[in-house]
Amino acid sequence: MPPSAVDVDVDTKSISAYGLARSTVKVEKPPLDPEEIRKTDEYFCASLYLCLGMLYLRDNPLLREPLKREHIKSRVLGHWGSDAGQSFTWIHMNRLIKKYNLDALFVSGPGHGAPGILSHSYLEGVYSEVYPDKTECETGMQRFFKSFSFPGGIGSHATPETPGSIHEGGELGYSISHAFGSVFDHPDLITLTMVGDGEAETGPLATSWHSTKFLNPITDGAVLPVLHLNGYKINNPTLLARISHEELTSLFIGYGWTPYFVEGSDRESMHQAMAATLEHCVLEIKGIQKRARESKKAFRPRWPMIVLRTPKGWTAPKDVDGKRLEGFWRAHQVPITDVSTNPEHLKLLESWMKSYHPEKLFGKEGKLIPELKALAPTGNFRMSANPVGNGGLLRKPLDLPDFRDYAASNLEPGITYLGNMSNVAKFLRDVIAKNPTSFRLFGPDETESNKLGEIYKAGKKVWLGAYFDEDKDGGNLAMDGRVMEMLSEHTIEGWLEGYILSGRHGLLNSYEPFIHIIDSMVNQHCKWLEKCLEVEWRAKVASLNILLTATVWRQDHNGFTHQDPGFLDVVCNKSPEVVRIYLPPDGNSLLSVTNHCLRSVNYVNVIVADKQEHIQFLNLEEAIEHCTKGVGIWDWASNDQGEDPDVVMASCGDVATHEALAATALLREYLPNLKVRFVNVVDLFRLISETQHPHGMSDRQWKALFTDDKPIIFNFHSYPFLVHRMSYKRPGQKNLHVRGYREKGNIDTPFELAIRNQADRYSLAIEAIDRVPSLHNKASSIREKFMNLRIQAQTSAFENGIDAEEIRNWKWPFPKHTN
Amino acid sequence: MPPSAVDVDVDTKSISAYGLARSTVKVEKPPLDPEEIRKTDEYFCASLYLCLGMLYLRDNPLLREPLKREHIKSRVLGHWGSDAGQSFTWIHMNRLIKKYNLDALFVSGPGHGAPGILSHSYLEGVYSEVYPDKTECETGMQRFFKSFSFPGGIGSHATPETPGSIHEGGELGYSISHAFGSVFDHPDLITLTMVGDGEAETGPLATSWHSTKFLNPITDGAVLPVLHLNGYKINNPTLLARISHEELTSLFIGYGWTPYFVEGSDRESMHQAMAATLEHCVLEIKGIQKRARESKKAFRPRWPMIVLRTPKGWTAPKDVDGKRLEGFWRAHQVPITDVSTNPEHLKLLESWMKSYHPEKLFGKEGKLIPELKALAPTGNFRMSANPVGNGGLLRKPLDLPDFRDYAASNLEPGITYLGNMSNVAKFLRDVIAKNPTSFRLFGPDETESNKLGEIYKAGKKVWLGAYFDEDKDGGNLAMDGRVMEMLSEHTIEGWLEGYILSGRHGLLNSYEPFIHIIDSMVNQHCKWLEKCLEVEWRAKVASLNILLTATVWRQDHNGFTHQDPGFLDVVCNKSPEVVRIYLPPDGNSLLSVTNHCLRSVNYVNVIVADKQEHIQFLNLEEAIEHCTKGVGIWDWASNDQGEDPDVVMASCGDVATHEALAATALLREYLPNLKVRFVNVVDLFRLISETQHPHGMSDRQWKALFTDDKPIIFNFHSYPFLVHRMSYKRPGQKNLHVRGYREKGNIDTPFELAIRNQADRYSLAIEAIDRVPSLHNKASSIREKFMNLRIQAQTSAFENGIDAEEIRNWKWPFPKHTN
Repeated sequence: MPPSAVDVDVDTKSISAYGLARSTVKVEKPPLDPEEIRKTDEYFCASLYLCLGMLYLRDNPLLREPLKREHIKSRVLGHWGSDAGQSFTWIHMNRLIKKYNLDALFVSGPGHGAPGILSHSYLEGVYSEVYPDKTECETGMQRFFKSFSFPGGIGSHATPETPGSIHEGGELGYSISHAFGSVFDHPDLITLTMVGDGEAETGPLATSWHSTKFLNPITDGAVLPVLHLNGYKINNPTLLARISHEELTSLFIGYGWTPYFVEGSDRESMHQAMAATLEHCVLEIKGIQKRARESKKAFRPRWPMIVLRTPKGWTAPKDVDGKRLEGFWRAHQVPITDVSTNPEHLKLLESWMKSYHPEKLFGKEGKLIPELKALAPTGNFRMSANPVGNGGLLRKPLDLPDFRDYAASNLEPGITYLGNMSNVAKFLRDVIAKNPTSFRLFGPDETESNKLGEIYKAGKKVWLGAYFDEDKDGGNLAMDGRVMEMLSEHTIEGWLEGYILSGRHGLLNSYEPFIHIIDSMVNQHCKWLEKCLEVEWRAKVASLNILLTATVWRQDHNGFTHQDPGFLDVVCNKSPEVVRIYLPPDGNSLLSVTNHCLRSVNYVNVIVADKQEHIQFLNLEEAIEHCTKGVGIWDWASNDQGEDPDVVMASCGDVATHEALAATALLREYLPNLKVRFVNVVDLFRLISETQHPHGMSDRQWKALFTDDKPIIFNFHSYPFLVHRMSYKRPGQKNLHVRGYREKGNIDTPFELAIRNQADRYSLAIEAIDRVPSLHNKASSIREKFMNLRIQAQTSAFENGIDAEEIRNWKWPFPKHTN
Repeated sequence: MPPSAVDVDVDTKSISAYGLARSTVKVEKPPLDPEEIRKTDEYFCASLYLCLGMLYLRDNPLLREPLKREHIKSRVLGHWGSDAGQSFTWIHMNRLIKKYNLDALFVSGPGHGAPGILSHSYLEGVYSEVYPDKTECETGMQRFFKSFSFPGGIGSHATPETPGSIHEGGELGYSISHAFGSVFDHPDLITLTMVGDGEAETGPLATSWHSTKFLNPITDGAVLPVLHLNGYKINNPTLLARISHEELTSLFIGYGWTPYFVEGSDRESMHQAMAATLEHCVLEIKGIQKRARESKKAFRPRWPMIVLRTPKGWTAPKDVDGKRLEGFWRAHQVPITDVSTNPEHLKLLESWMKSYHPEKLFGKEGKLIPELKALAPTGNFRMSANPVGNGGLLRKPLDLPDFRDYAASNLEPGITYLGNMSNVAKFLRDVIAKNPTSFRLFGPDETESNKLGEIYKAGKKVWLGAYFDEDKDGGNLAMDGRVMEMLSEHTIEGWLEGYILSGRHGLLNSYEPFIHIIDSMVNQHCKWLEKCLEVEWRAKVASLNILLTATVWRQDHNGFTHQDPGFLDVVCNKSPEVVRIYLPPDGNSLLSVTNHCLRSVNYVNVIVADKQEHIQFLNLEEAIEHCTKGVGIWDWASNDQGEDPDVVMASCGDVATHEALAATALLREYLPNLKVRFVNVVDLFRLISETQHPHGMSDRQWKALFTDDKPIIFNFHSYPFLVHRMSYKRPGQKNLHVRGYREKGNIDTPFELAIRNQADRYSLAIEAIDRVPSLHNKASSIREKFMNLRIQAQTSAFENGIDAEEIRNWKWPFPKHTN
């Protein structure tokens, strides 16, 4: 190592294939003195020793006895590959946290390297604070080791049980977007983010580097990414580890970052290089923020980042049985798997573990020695104890305006047409205005299209890209906006998750057809929330709210590809403890539901509401009552008062309700003696048994609404089977006939409210006639009439390219509130 | 325009914000003479005229009468924004196709700009060839216009109805991966790929640029991307249009491309610049291929690409009512929407359309004049007629080895343990060997982990990244491999879709937990396939085969995040015409199913099979028979021969079957008088009614298998509700009790085959006891025994970290084939 500059040459021949052009940090003198190097490396050893202990040991944690088979777990599980690099980075950040009093969080992208993170939370004492049975002593260490990836213990990722973690990393690709979510509106926070080079190949990660175009250096904190070029995934080299320095540097400059390289395996020189480089980056971040904050002018700098190239499984034996281990894919998971059955390998493991000298690192009682302990920060400065990593602690309820003030008034229910979004948009506008540092709205470039443009009056779209003159013409862009729009559902969902998990609130709006893009992310967030319910020290976070609009029924012009309402099926598979689904039938009910969701915690709330103009049904008080109940009979639409109905017409979803009511009106008009009951469902989980979901209802309640012997014609927003699933084994289930969206038989047509998938008014009315036994034969001429009306409506749409006036602007024909 | 170099300066002030550093192609003299420019621009005008016609007109297609309201569609739908840029690119490729006899395909990434593509297929005569009612005459043009985004007509994307299209673009992000799929093993093909700058923000697109590391310049063709910096998405500027030339250039160099810039709006100079640049790129591609092919040494070059910056809505009026239109987001969809109600706007539209001079472009009968027609290639050289764009035409059935030769033989059914993948891996190895240019295997770095490593003997992993010495140590990398592995489910799925849609075959293998990442892509592919069934000229393509392994039941060590078998629910929502789901219980049945899937066409086949060692049940002949039936009674496991059973034990899925059989054995051992029937399901859609799926069964068949009055204890691989959904309204449905994976109550434990979600043998046996009325009370001591066994098993797993021997290595305890 040259004494006057930290510019470490890589130490494997193969690295020369990358070429030489790369930027490294130059410093006048090495940042660490020999004593500091020794202590830093010993701390590193302590962490690595713990990592191996977690992978292998169920007993004999400090190797005070010779290692025997019975000390080894029956199944050795976990990942070693990225542990050293992650631990190494953590340690060097600790130095800077102490030196500069930094507020720092650690996001572990590789995920699989959880031992690297867990070891630090144990060394820092946090693990023992939150899990008092895992004390800093030999017994505690034994328990700590045994519980790793063990039945009844913890998983092998940075799961919710991991102190300081807001990112599990089981499914790869979201570390950068989560990290950005954590620093928005946290101006002093630096989130140090390890990005695995495997993870970096995923699409979501690849585009999330662009997040800098949405980061304000005055009001937001900073993300400091460390791209960990570990070299290998499970069985393959990684792409970014196999391109030239020139390409790699170009890539990150292109993404808007300045990459600094720290590459090698010699521990001493690597400690110097990392210490210098990390410090340089932290100071560069501080400098950028100072410049922006003092000038009060935000700008997009080229933010610093680090490319850390270390051998995969760094510090492992070079080879085992003549096969390469360190620096190769074989070091990805547990590096030597057969230690229980192969005595030589058991010996090898023992000598490997002892090479870290646990006897020097841990005192007699088994606790990290004070000299090393002093290297870590204390209290909430410890990254494993940062409250941002347990965001519920920071969460304050939103300051919500009274949603009643935003009600659509002077409604003629059943007559007035209004955009369902118009009032909720004003409500959200004022939510933004009243919560200027703790609520953001997210969307993939659809907020305006989704008729929520009103919100820009309180918070424009965050934009740190270049500005053009034309932006003044309604661009609604601002350096300090509150609305986050990027055409990447993955990125905005990741931001929102990070924002919520670090203690704030938000809502994502999206076209319904494209929400499947983030099925897996929402799944993972649900699983995170569910697991948190079992982790006592985790404080509850705000709910993740998803508003789905531009729904399947209005995707005629975009066609078949835009027609998939199946996200609800995905959500319904998640734990009832954490998911809620609402389909408000009109504007006031949407307002009531939205207000409710913004107050809730620890859920994923899905609201489905179309953005177009719709007939309005409920005044505010009615809407509040109806949404509170979640399901109810609409007396004004029914004519069965005080009697058993002949048929129950039911609906869930705005367009579905419109058509079901039109069908009800047809029945009442043409068959005035038929007793029709109308039931509307807002809260989808009301349909399920109360034994299966907290919002579920009893069979008695079900019967009171739907009867147990009358035909139920249910018009549903989504795929019909979901209703069958929800109402499985209900009394009278065999009488339930659900219509809704079906792939088969779909035709591309703007004949929106009719024939498509046979969920239109005429089909519903015909179905009702067919299902009511007393009408058989009697109503055949009326049935034919409805068939003809249906054909006429279709013909008219095909000829004119638009639904007939009486379809589009249908109104409820009876006086409301009388029958 | 400087006469001696094509280096066009941008013509808006704001562009100067990008900085000056960008590479443009320099040529000695402009490539086009004035006559060529005139004709090229007229062809451009003809295309743009058609685009507007599609958006607006239902009549008066050639504006031979003054434009009136009644000529305008009632709803004007579609997108204008990217039409001009796409059309412009198409035209310039036409010149080179003719000049160099290129085999070229066009992929339209923005998707929303379908008119740009449709107009060319009409101008080239292909549209009239495949839709004889849309002839090249005034009437044909009127029909062509009217059918666009109209009921009973076509969608507004490059849907399957679009000649030459293999990419719809409704959901953005897959143009580059689809394009790469089309050129693999098509060495002479150049797929010209327009990438929208909105689309370029998505994750899938952002990582798909790395596809060049998997492209062999000897055996594969080339993708020529044209990144279309249109400037705006729906309502926002795009990221890539708002960063400096330096960053943009760096980004693409980093991705491994050489970007050439064509920027401006002056049509004459833009024609010269595009002609020169496109030609330069085509020649660069040809040069790279020549070098590689002559030397027989593959390498990864920096492939050329084009950055085309034109104003959004190029050639539209600059402004309307004083509001900026061309070059702004207002030009994204239909630029002037109120032409039916605003007479001034109607006039404006008329004069805009007339500015293209349709009267000069289209002859008396309404057909493009011969002078312009001569600019387009003919026959299959037309991009809209390239058979690659209707890949079923090129598809040849696979040359499949006889799968019977790969059977696991000498099985002791119910006793022998074997990896389910071991035989199918050999079969797939030979499929690869026998089909060296028409079959590839795809996976996100999991092929080896999924125990399919045997296939590398026939085809290694394609890798054009850097090679290191260590790769010789089992790296299985090759420039000319047959296995495609990148840690991006999006990219490999996109490649596979492109590969299949262009006439070849493939199979994707993935861990089950991460397949939700591509829910939306699979949805879109299903929709594509379904729509193709209605498009007569589309020839059927090979099925898209997905092998899911590392299933939910074996994800104990990876924990809760890796546990989601809900992909099947997503698939079940798709049209029965195009989806098939198989859950083979063992190795021979997996072999039989795989063979079947590789022979099928036009489906998405999903096979779920765990990769670990499993007990084997069926010899080959039994497996073939069982898989052909899709469901059947396993007589050897049942003891109800010739009698009504007391209980039906049923299963679907390998782990589920193992546990259900173990439960059956428990019942038979402890309750020898109980008559148990065992039913296994391979083909999930057998469960559904024959009225709803081609594989469905009648109620009579159902009753013969499951009875209509006996309890059915069904152990299922996935979420239980899917079975309820499938068997909805079956006779005896109320007797159906399904166990399977549930989120709620999950615990992270390697106690794999037991307690988790109560789908273990003891719970199943207890459920059976509880459901058989004749056993009430009588079996209470046995019930308690099972409860105790269950607790013991759990305790043992918690203590030892592994299931007890009798759980892990359980064997069928009765003589097989006797009872």
